[in-house]
Amino acid sequence: MPKGFVGKVLRVDLTEGTTWVEEPPESWYRTYLGGSAVVAYYLLKELPENCDPLGPDNRLIFATGPFTGTPLAGSGRNNVGAKSPLNGGFGDAQGGGFWMAELKKAGFDHIVIQGRAESPVYLWIKDGEVAIRDAGQLWGKETKEVEDRIREELGDERIRVTQCGVAGENLVRYACVINDLTHFPGRTGMGAVMGSKNLRAVAVRGTQNVEIDDMDTVRELARRMSQEVNDGTRAASLKEHGTAGGVMGLDAGGGLPTRNFQFGDFEGAEKISGPTMTDTILVDRETCHACPIFCKRVVKTDAYGGVDPIYGGPEYETIGSIGSNCGIDDLGAISKGNEICNKLGLDTISAGMVVSFAMECFERGVLSKDDLDGLELNFGNGEAMVALLEKIARREGVGDLLAEGAARAARAIGPQALELALTIKGQEIPMHEPRYKHGLGIGYAVSPTGADHCHNIHDTVYENSADAVNVFGVIDPLPIDDLSGEKVRVFYYESNWKHMLNSAVSCQFVPWTKREYVDGMRALTGWDTSVHELMKAGERTATLARAFNMTCGFDDRDDELNDRFFTAFSRGPLEGKVIDRGTFNKARVTYYHMMGWDDLGRPTSSRLDELGIDWVADLL
Amino acid sequence: MPKGFVGKVLRVDLTEGTTWVEEPPESWYRTYLGGSAVVAYYLLKELPENCDPLGPDNRLIFATGPFTGTPLAGSGRNNVGAKSPLNGGFGDAQGGGFWMAELKKAGFDHIVIQGRAESPVYLWIKDGEVAIRDAGQLWGKETKEVEDRIREELGDERIRVTQCGVAGENLVRYACVINDLTHFPGRTGMGAVMGSKNLRAVAVRGTQNVEIDDMDTVRELARRMSQEVNDGTRAASLKEHGTAGGVMGLDAGGGLPTRNFQFGDFEGAEKISGPTMTDTILVDRETCHACPIFCKRVVKTDAYGGVDPIYGGPEYETIGSIGSNCGIDDLGAISKGNEICNKLGLDTISAGMVVSFAMECFERGVLSKDDLDGLELNFGNGEAMVALLEKIARREGVGDLLAEGAARAARAIGPQALELALTIKGQEIPMHEPRYKHGLGIGYAVSPTGADHCHNIHDTVYENSADAVNVFGVIDPLPIDDLSGEKVRVFYYESNWKHMLNSAVSCQFVPWTKREYVDGMRALTGWDTSVHELMKAGERTATLARAFNMTCGFDDRDDELNDRFFTAFSRGPLEGKVIDRGTFNKARVTYYHMMGWDDLGRPTSSRLDELGIDWVADLL
Repeated sequence: MPKGFVGKVLRVDLTEGTTWVEEPPESWYRTYLGGSAVVAYYLLKELPENCDPLGPDNRLIFATGPFTGTPLAGSGRNNVGAKSPLNGGFGDAQGGGFWMAELKKAGFDHIVIQGRAESPVYLWIKDGEVAIRDAGQLWGKETKEVEDRIREELGDERIRVTQCGVAGENLVRYACVINDLTHFPGRTGMGAVMGSKNLRAVAVRGTQNVEIDDMDTVRELARRMSQEVNDGTRAASLKEHGTAGGVMGLDAGGGLPTRNFQFGDFEGAEKISGPTMTDTILVDRETCHACPIFCKRVVKTDAYGGVDPIYGGPEYETIGSIGSNCGIDDLGAISKGNEICNKLGLDTISAGMVVSFAMECFERGVLSKDDLDGLELNFGNGEAMVALLEKIARREGVGDLLAEGAARAARAIGPQALELALTIKGQEIPMHEPRYKHGLGIGYAVSPTGADHCHNIHDTVYENSADAVNVFGVIDPLPIDDLSGEKVRVFYYESNWKHMLNSAVSCQFVPWTKREYVDGMRALTGWDTSVHELMKAGERTATLARAFNMTCGFDDRDDELNDRFFTAFSRGPLEGKVIDRGTFNKARVTYYHMMGWDDLGRPTSSRLDELGIDWVADLL
Repeated sequence: MPKGFVGKVLRVDLTEGTTWVEEPPESWYRTYLGGSAVVAYYLLKELPENCDPLGPDNRLIFATGPFTGTPLAGSGRNNVGAKSPLNGGFGDAQGGGFWMAELKKAGFDHIVIQGRAESPVYLWIKDGEVAIRDAGQLWGKETKEVEDRIREELGDERIRVTQCGVAGENLVRYACVINDLTHFPGRTGMGAVMGSKNLRAVAVRGTQNVEIDDMDTVRELARRMSQEVNDGTRAASLKEHGTAGGVMGLDAGGGLPTRNFQFGDFEGAEKISGPTMTDTILVDRETCHACPIFCKRVVKTDAYGGVDPIYGGPEYETIGSIGSNCGIDDLGAISKGNEICNKLGLDTISAGMVVSFAMECFERGVLSKDDLDGLELNFGNGEAMVALLEKIARREGVGDLLAEGAARAARAIGPQALELALTIKGQEIPMHEPRYKHGLGIGYAVSPTGADHCHNIHDTVYENSADAVNVFGVIDPLPIDDLSGEKVRVFYYESNWKHMLNSAVSCQFVPWTKREYVDGMRALTGWDTSVHELMKAGERTATLARAFNMTCGFDDRDDELNDRFFTAFSRGPLEGKVIDRGTFNKARVTYYHMMGWDDLGRPTSSRLDELGIDWVADLL
């Protein structure tokens, strides 16, 4: 049994009502690590051609990695993957919490679920024992009630629950998965896949410890991070203000998505910033398994009839998506919108972008008040935003159309709506402006999940982290609007590192140096590994995901940015700024080549050989 | 000033009689490290188009690296580079000894020499002071006399001398450079370039220590290696029998080059093996700077009028090239031939291969006794071999033709000789049989210096070194006659690592693990480096060398193996064995692609970007 892993994969067939266990060899664990790579592995190996993402043949994969559940900060993460009902290709979402640590203690690294239960069920896993249980009484309920009922029914308050929400039940294409009520593998519609399988939740409880090769080193690494977080040496802003700490800086630079990405600066920025939240509605800070940073917010307000702190508080992505991006400067409205998404199971990024899409449609006369069930959907209308989110989650009225995502909704609405739907490969763009950070734009375009920030760069990597540069050698600092081959090199390195983090599986926010990370991986597994091997692991993940997308019909023409980003800002700090299309096209091909892909973005057999996944060639 | 380096490059113009000093920034040192990469850098940057290798425009570069001269075993190495008079492209040779450690103490990392002195000179460098001195009295002398006279003239017995020999003076195209009398940067004719510049020697003496970032770690690494070599844990065979320890194993496997590579087994193998040498003519063991292994042989015999132990003893390459490869089973003859090459300055590999070429020409009637100045040049004739080596070094009689190397000599002799000249890119093949080790065959073909073993793999890397596999991840053991994509992957990794070793600069025989090597590099330089950065450094070196060859007119058609290796052995353990040409061609292109080169072996701009050497694109 490989150290750092359980060594077991739980297989579930919901159609047959059967479960079984696979025990892959250590070489499999070392090649794929876990997380995103394991998702891609099973999708490539097992999905039939033209598999319906919402049909029984799709695989729903809950995947951990060697870091998961260890004492190392950032190890409270897991992936949920499947063929995505939102983008039609690689679906893969990362979230935090405590559920995944409990899963490993309960005896499994990963769960691979196929089929569809006849009626609602949930999975119950305790110390290697697995049961498929009736969830009829949970269907249609808010997430808190589902968690409470499961714990009550099974008689153990320490049970950890991951679930889809009402939005997932309703097959909203950007429904999220919810870990421990306040942590969300949010993107690519994994909640809808859960719903399509009639699987409302997976409850876990475990008491078995995973064997670690060198626990002394692991504890020493954990102790150092903890100490330096506590004394403010590392992650100080993240601890103090959460992920929203950077709102004012983005606004000042012209990179704060505003009114459906029409602008990069927002007059109400300060009112929705991290420090304002800290000073007003913040009542507590929360965290994930083993993490001393406590970046998670807990807010309480009487606005909108009251916002329940049990559902946490808005992240930066949420403050952007249903705040500035919808022209809303009211933390009360944002907190209420966040609570709705959390308790009903909507990805706040896609949900906010769908609302802002509808708002721009309304302001431009593409959608009327009648089309919108009587909502006056102007930018800035918090009440309308809150109402619309609930309609979407429940597929009520216009919510039924918007539950399909911006891309599908725009096609249904008509040609005038198309350019207002800011999606890439069908997924809505997160709260980072490519005209501000040009490298990030390449990242959006080539991301296997469509627009995504979880395996992207933020361009300022040089200034923030000498480590990132040093372990790779000499790389000169570059401006954030640069798209030279040197910038692509940084993107190539950093995005592969992040694909590795999503496979290992750990949080991107915890500021481990790459050297510490390798030390941690060695101590967990006993492998004599290196930055080189881990970088190749990330490249392997990205290439497997790329290959899966190719089997779904994607090609280089899907690696696009929206026209809006090639159009200049009409105001603000970046007035007149665009991404040059020729430079963008060249940078994209440069990235292909660095990845060992051909001019059209197809992985070459040579790179598949180098990555030890030559079996993929037969699928392409 | 970067730690681990002096921070100074000595420039010399022998035409003008001037010297000056360059002080490159630390980023330059970190990008290129030293050794082979620095050679390629200056050749690419400074050589005019169609530069005559033996003309004044050529640059002769003595290059060290961060490892050179430190307490770490293997640090007693340096490179000598130039455009090669043998292969017409990238000339680069590595050798050991003590001279290079003294050079750094004398105040320089590298020496770059251009021009041509009007009359013979030598360079004298002492603690940063440089003089160009008359060498008229040294010209035509054997190497021992030259070293003695210089020390006497300058009044310091501790002076270290590197020099060309009489062969270099005579522009023998495979003349070597001689460090400290018994260590040889042997390949690609660097001695001839020295001779062409009327530069007989470079004498150095230094008392300045190079600053090291973390000497405690360096000393601890050195102590551990020393202890494990002494207790037999590491490098035991190398210590006991030198590099010739493997002769019997090669013979048993059918991979001992015999009679100009006609066969892979030799009936006289045991008589010339390392253990036999140990038991008979060995009188001492010698070593290089800071190395506890003592792999260098010192032999003494009365055969052939006596062999002087001052010139050391034969390495495996020499025992192969003028032994089995010439059908000679007499250690006396081999030792005498070795002494002649050493004191006159011939690369024993090329020299032995030129002799075996002439022997096969003679046996096949392509050259007659008359053509050979009356020598009965049958395989196995030790006396004729010894006589011919002296003729070559002095360009006497048929030696004048053979001094041009096998490829040029064959073209002069006629069509029947062509297939008997076993050279790749004009350089004679070293003593490793590609039909035995198939990965090595790819290495010969794509090597920038032509056939070479100094940046190649030996195929058995899996069995010998778990470390080599582990830091790169999961790689299954492969048979030595495999040429799959997986084997190319290993070659890609291992050859780049060796290109890095030739740049860092250190010995390939010292069994540092890759992890120890990175620890050493960090401790020497203070850089937060990684296996990833060092692998990219090696890839950068190989790519720079490739680019230089392209500017010299080489293309993919030069990445060839001789027909002989696609022809089956007629006897021995590998009877019937060949390399399959289709498989070989495919593997070669797979290597190109892994290197980021196109189908025709041309580096892509994307890989140049990734390696931080985009300036090279303008030269291609």
